[in-house]
Amino acid sequence: LIRLLTPEERRIATSLLGYPEGSVGRLMTPDFIAVHEDWTVQEVLDYVRQYGRDSETLNFVYVVDDRGKLIDDVRMREFLLKPLTSKVSEIRDESFAALKVQDSQEDALNVFRKYDRAALPVVDSNGVLVGIVTSDDMLDVAEEEATEDIQKMGGMEALEEPYMRISFFQMVKKRAVWLVVLFLGEMLTATAMANYQDELAKALVLALFLPLIISSGGNSGSQASTLMIRAMALGEVTLRDWWRVMNRELQAGLALGGILGVIGVVRVSAWEMIAEKYFHRQPYGAHWHLVSLTVGIALVGVVLWGTLSGSMLPFVLRRCGADPATSSAPFVATLVDVTGLIIYFSLALLIMRGTML
Amino acid sequence: LIRLLTPEERRIATSLLGYPEGSVGRLMTPDFIAVHEDWTVQEVLDYVRQYGRDSETLNFVYVVDDRGKLIDDVRMREFLLKPLTSKVSEIRDESFAALKVQDSQEDALNVFRKYDRAALPVVDSNGVLVGIVTSDDMLDVAEEEATEDIQKMGGMEALEEPYMRISFFQMVKKRAVWLVVLFLGEMLTATAMANYQDELAKALVLALFLPLIISSGGNSGSQASTLMIRAMALGEVTLRDWWRVMNRELQAGLALGGILGVIGVVRVSAWEMIAEKYFHRQPYGAHWHLVSLTVGIALVGVVLWGTLSGSMLPFVLRRCGADPATSSAPFVATLVDVTGLIIYFSLALLIMRGTML
Repeated sequence: LIRLLTPEERRIATSLLGYPEGSVGRLMTPDFIAVHEDWTVQEVLDYVRQYGRDSETLNFVYVVDDRGKLIDDVRMREFLLKPLTSKVSEIRDESFAALKVQDSQEDALNVFRKYDRAALPVVDSNGVLVGIVTSDDMLDVAEEEATEDIQKMGGMEALEEPYMRISFFQMVKKRAVWLVVLFLGEMLTATAMANYQDELAKALVLALFLPLIISSGGNSGSQASTLMIRAMALGEVTLRDWWRVMNRELQAGLALGGILGVIGVVRVSAWEMIAEKYFHRQPYGAHWHLVSLTVGIALVGVVLWGTLSGSMLPFVLRRCGADPATSSAPFVATLVDVTGLIIYFSLALLIMRGTML
Repeated sequence: LIRLLTPEERRIATSLLGYPEGSVGRLMTPDFIAVHEDWTVQEVLDYVRQYGRDSETLNFVYVVDDRGKLIDDVRMREFLLKPLTSKVSEIRDESFAALKVQDSQEDALNVFRKYDRAALPVVDSNGVLVGIVTSDDMLDVAEEEATEDIQKMGGMEALEEPYMRISFFQMVKKRAVWLVVLFLGEMLTATAMANYQDELAKALVLALFLPLIISSGGNSGSQASTLMIRAMALGEVTLRDWWRVMNRELQAGLALGGILGVIGVVRVSAWEMIAEKYFHRQPYGAHWHLVSLTVGIALVGVVLWGTLSGSMLPFVLRRCGADPATSSAPFVATLVDVTGLIIYFSLALLIMRGTML
C-alpha cells in the first residue's frame, strides 16, 4: 500500500509507522523486486519487465519464501548472464546480508563498509523483507556524519544546515553554547593561578613559559582525541580496545613529551647563554638551569597527560552513551590547560624550593 | 587488452599508463557494457548475456558511436522494462554526465554528489569511453578524504593507515612534526611576554587572566576554521565567497566576543565584590574595575581576531594551493595565542597607564 504514495506522502507515512529518526526504516525504500525460488530466469525477467518500473534499483533481486521472509539476494547480473531456463534455486548462493528496520543509520553504514554492496535489503523483526537501502543514500549518511563529527570536533554544536544557508542567529547560537562552556571551564585557570600568585611574584619568569607549556598539552591532547574519534567513527577502534590504546598512547605521550622537553631545555639554556655572552644579562635569572629543568620536565608531564586524557576521553564519552566527537580539540585543550597549569606550578615548587621559591 | 589482466596487474598497468595517483584514471575499471544506437533491446540483452560477465556493473549501459566516443548512458532498467523490439535510439535521452580520466578523485566526488548516480562513465580527452567509476568506490574516497581532513584538523599529518595498524614510529613521526612546528610557533609567546615583564611585575593580576583570554581566541578561531574547511571540502563554499564569509564572521566574531566579554566583566566584578564583602580583601587590587574593563575589551578583540583569522586562513591556504585542512584547530590556536597576548597587553597598557602601569 505504501508504494502507491508519492515520496512526500511516503516520508510522512513511514514516520507515522513509528520508525525513529535516524533509523534504517526512515532511509529505506519499499520499491524492490522479490521473486520465488522455483521461478526461471525467463519468469524473473518477465516479472521485472511488468512490475519493475517503480523499483529503486534493479541491481538486486530478492528471493523470499511464501510468507515474504527474505531467504536470499541475487544480483540482477546473474539473471542477465545465466541461460533463460535456469531456476532461481540454481542461481542463489544461500548467503546474504540484511539490515534490520530498527537499526541506526550509523550501524547500517558499518554494514555497508563491511559488505561493499550497492544495496542492502531491510527486514523486520520476523525476517520479512520490507525495503531496501542503496549505497548512494549511504554516501549522504557518511558525509553528513563526517560533517557533524568535524564540527563537534571543532568545538561547537553540529550545524544542521550548510554554512551559507544557516541563519546567522542559529549559527551564532550553536557556536556560542560551546564557547561559553569552554570559557567557564577555562576560568578555572584564573582560579588555579590565583593560588600560585606568591610563587609568580617571586619567580615571574615562570609566567613567560606558561602559554607555551599549557598549549603543548592542548595540542598533543587534540591530536590524540582526533585520532580516537575518527577511528571510532570508522569502527577501527571499539570500546574494548581502550587498554591497548592507553598503552600505545602512554608510549607516544612519553616520546612526544620527550621531544618537546628537549627542545624546551635547549631553548631556555641557549637563549640564556647567548644573552649572557653577547648582551651581558641573565634573562631567566641566576637559577636559569632550574628554570630550564622545570620547563623540560613540565613539558614531558603535560604532553603525556594531554595525550592520555585526549585519547581516553572519547572512550569515556562513548561508555557513557555520549558522542565521542564531543571531546573536541578545544574541549581537551581547556581540560589540559587547567591541569597543565597545576602540573607546571607543582613541579616548579618541587624543583625551585629553597632557591627561587 | 587491459581487461585480460588480473586486478593486481591492472593496477600496475594503469599506473604505467601514466594516470597520476589520486586521479580518476586510477580508480576506474575498464569493464563496462558499450552498445550502439541502432541495436534493439533484445540485441543488447543478448550481448550482455554473452559479454557481460566481467563488467563491474550492469546497472548502466553506455552508448558509443563508431569511433568509441561516448554519446549517452542508459540505465539497465530501461532495457529490462522496455519491449524487446525497442531500439536503443528510442530509449536514450541524449543527456549524460561523464568524468574525465585525468580529473582528480576529489572532483569526481563532487560530480557524484551533484548527479547522485550509482556509476559514472570516464572519457579520455577525445571523449572516448575508457572506463567507469562506481559509487561504492566513491564511498571509500569520501571517507578517506574525511579522515585525512579530520586528522589534519586535529593538528597532525594524515596517517596513511588505520590507527591500530600503523607502526608506532610512523605514528609518532606524523604527530611529532606538527607538534614541534606548533611548539616553535608557541615559543613566540615567551618572547612576546618577555617584552611585557615590567608590566607583569607591576600588575601581576594580568597574568591570572592570560590563559583564559588567549584560549578563548583559540577556541573561536578553531570553530571558524573547522566550519570553513568542511564547507570547502563539500563544495558549499568556494574561494570567491571569501568576502561574504568575512562579513559574516566579522559579525559572528563581534557577537561571540561580546558574549564572552560580558561574562568576563561579570566574573571579575562579581568575584571582587564577593571577596570584598565576605573575605575583606581585594583579589584584583584597588583598580579592579580597570582589570575588569581590560579583560572585557580584550575578550572582544581576541575573539573577533580569532574568528576572522580562523575563517580566512583556509581561504589563504587554498589560494596558495595548499590544503585548507592544514589550518587546524591547534594551528589557529597557536597563531591566536601569540597575537592575542599582544592584543591583551597592548589594551592593558592603554587602559591602565598612569594607574596600575
